[in-house]
Amino acid sequence: MAISSHIKEMMEGSSFIRKMFETGAKLKEQYGDDNVYDFSLGNPDVPPIQKFTDTVIKIMEEDIPAKHGYMANAGFSFARKAVAAQVSKDQKADVDEQSVVMTCGAGGALNIVLKSILNPGDRVLVSSPCFMEYKFYADNHGGKLEIIKPKENFELDADAFEKAMGADVAAVILNSPNNPSGKIYSKENLNSLFEVLKKASDKYGRSIYVICDEPYRNIVFDGAEVPAVFPLYNNSIVVTSYSKNLSLPGERIGYVAANPAADDFDDLMNAVILCNRIMGFVNAPALMQRAVSELQGETVDISVYQRKRDLLCEELSRIGYEFEKPKGTFYLFIKAPGGDDAAFADLLLKERVLVVPGSGFAMPGYFRISYCVEDKTIKGSFSGFEKAFKQVCKNC
Amino acid sequence: MAISSHIKEMMEGSSFIRKMFETGAKLKEQYGDDNVYDFSLGNPDVPPIQKFTDTVIKIMEEDIPAKHGYMANAGFSFARKAVAAQVSKDQKADVDEQSVVMTCGAGGALNIVLKSILNPGDRVLVSSPCFMEYKFYADNHGGKLEIIKPKENFELDADAFEKAMGADVAAVILNSPNNPSGKIYSKENLNSLFEVLKKASDKYGRSIYVICDEPYRNIVFDGAEVPAVFPLYNNSIVVTSYSKNLSLPGERIGYVAANPAADDFDDLMNAVILCNRIMGFVNAPALMQRAVSELQGETVDISVYQRKRDLLCEELSRIGYEFEKPKGTFYLFIKAPGGDDAAFADLLLKERVLVVPGSGFAMPGYFRISYCVEDKTIKGSFSGFEKAFKQVCKNC
Repeated sequence: MAISSHIKEMMEGSSFIRKMFETGAKLKEQYGDDNVYDFSLGNPDVPPIQKFTDTVIKIMEEDIPAKHGYMANAGFSFARKAVAAQVSKDQKADVDEQSVVMTCGAGGALNIVLKSILNPGDRVLVSSPCFMEYKFYADNHGGKLEIIKPKENFELDADAFEKAMGADVAAVILNSPNNPSGKIYSKENLNSLFEVLKKASDKYGRSIYVICDEPYRNIVFDGAEVPAVFPLYNNSIVVTSYSKNLSLPGERIGYVAANPAADDFDDLMNAVILCNRIMGFVNAPALMQRAVSELQGETVDISVYQRKRDLLCEELSRIGYEFEKPKGTFYLFIKAPGGDDAAFADLLLKERVLVVPGSGFAMPGYFRISYCVEDKTIKGSFSGFEKAFKQVCKNC
Repeated sequence: MAISSHIKEMMEGSSFIRKMFETGAKLKEQYGDDNVYDFSLGNPDVPPIQKFTDTVIKIMEEDIPAKHGYMANAGFSFARKAVAAQVSKDQKADVDEQSVVMTCGAGGALNIVLKSILNPGDRVLVSSPCFMEYKFYADNHGGKLEIIKPKENFELDADAFEKAMGADVAAVILNSPNNPSGKIYSKENLNSLFEVLKKASDKYGRSIYVICDEPYRNIVFDGAEVPAVFPLYNNSIVVTSYSKNLSLPGERIGYVAANPAADDFDDLMNAVILCNRIMGFVNAPALMQRAVSELQGETVDISVYQRKRDLLCEELSRIGYEFEKPKGTFYLFIKAPGGDDAAFADLLLKERVLVVPGSGFAMPGYFRISYCVEDKTIKGSFSGFEKAFKQVCKNC
């Protein structure tokens, strides 16, 4: 016996994605990068803004004591203040630095929040389709992820959530704009869920948290707005990163921002800060804290994503694919012709088009296109998309 | 009920350190920063080398595709290669990039390694005195830290380790040069432990890992060398960071390097990479990976620490304090006059001198001085050290 049995099981379970990744790498080797149309990864391709680069260089050139040193585990006070001011606007609430902990990305933020609140066996609910790393994150801290099926058009199904309620429900994760569907949950839809959670909190005598995972908050089109959750639900916590809006996913910079109206607010924040330390994150990267504190409210050029979305939507509609045109993120979530997402993804693979089957988001029957790729990849893929479609829908 | 009961307990347990921190902050407010002599934190005060700053600026100015983007969870291939070349020298072994995973500091590295190897209830052994965050790190992944008392002069006590062996021992953490004692374990002393571990591995049929936590490997004086562990013990893993040798603790950059001779090497590395991802680290900060890959073998000006050590050792010896002059780190670990470390730390506090009682390192009867502070702090503290000493040792 060498490694952990549980991790060994997980490794076997995640071999599907690795296999897909390896198949993609082999295809690229065989046909060349330009002849493989890889829509599988959410790695933003719009470069960071010039102001980010300038800000980092300015900080590096400045004379700042302990520039790269430890700071309080919650982060630099000036960074927390800058973030709090932005969160106040986003969440239409009065948020100060006490609400904010700087983190190693949204992945780090989610883990320290879940570790802070989960007791052994607790359930964490999420509406499908969803990012499946949540399952690992809940499991890391003794919890269990439970997937709740959505209504039509991927809306939250408050009735389904109500049926799942129990004393062991610790939190609901909300990811809006949603990966993979691009869905932005409306205020009405959110309120229907929050009513259920408030009733269950009273009934079971525990604070059920709503964890808003919103790295795509600023990647929205057609004037769409992402509703503020803080005024609607007290026990709410934002976890997010600058990975998507500033195209910095490799730098691991994000934050936790808790609603000042949350139950036992001080305990909650002290727990989050403690967990940031004891999980080994210790603190968010210092230089990136300094940089993002000067870049609040900035985003990369979102119009590029909008243009790519429109390009894809127009052509895929023309071919006959069925999907809702999303108002946010850089994903399209499309009905798999024939209904079998894995089989259809295989058909696309034969055309050297790489997508992720919806089963990877707890939503079989669909597939995800991540369109943060070059225009030539999009244009080059169309004939493959058409061929695969026609193979399945000969008589559609 | 709001937050996790286990975390709530931990918060209550760690209130001692918080209280000390708060007392220090109050003292500084009351008497001014210059009149408080704070030796409590291991935050390097020697600035990073100019080459670090130049390298970061150069990288920021270069045109590099996806400069701040995701890479493989293990890190950039070029960074892993650069680290592997350095580890090959440090460990006198032939190490390639397959052995290396870039991490968010040594804290991140330790956590992903422990998660990779621990089964529920497993024990992780460590010789005291030791960094007590290890306790949290083991606990995070269902393990238990067990402290083994050292021999005189803080040497590893192989007999004591032998008595502690059992089927549930998954790993031993070795921290050399040691925080807080500054001890460098000799090759002979290490071998005495490794013999025990090899026998126990055979007896219990499991791979017992030696995790070498060595961020102070390059902070050594008087020509001291830290022995290579890879040639001595196959199931060995280095976890470390650039926090101390490059004075970058806030940037969270480090690595895991596993011995290529380790049992089930591929499984082990795949587990470490998976855990880096699923714990929410995802990958080590991209810009710092790029920077340190060009700074292998570099260190800050170590002579500054040596000078501070000598300044303190000379004066504290003169006063009458008892300690071994350490050959590494930037810590002194001193016998508490009177034997009660907490009481003596309180006496020093009255002289506005902040130290950490040995109880905080599982070694009561001592206290730790962290001398990565300004010279004026060192010089200003001497009269306080003398007064406190004389109060306890009136008749010494």
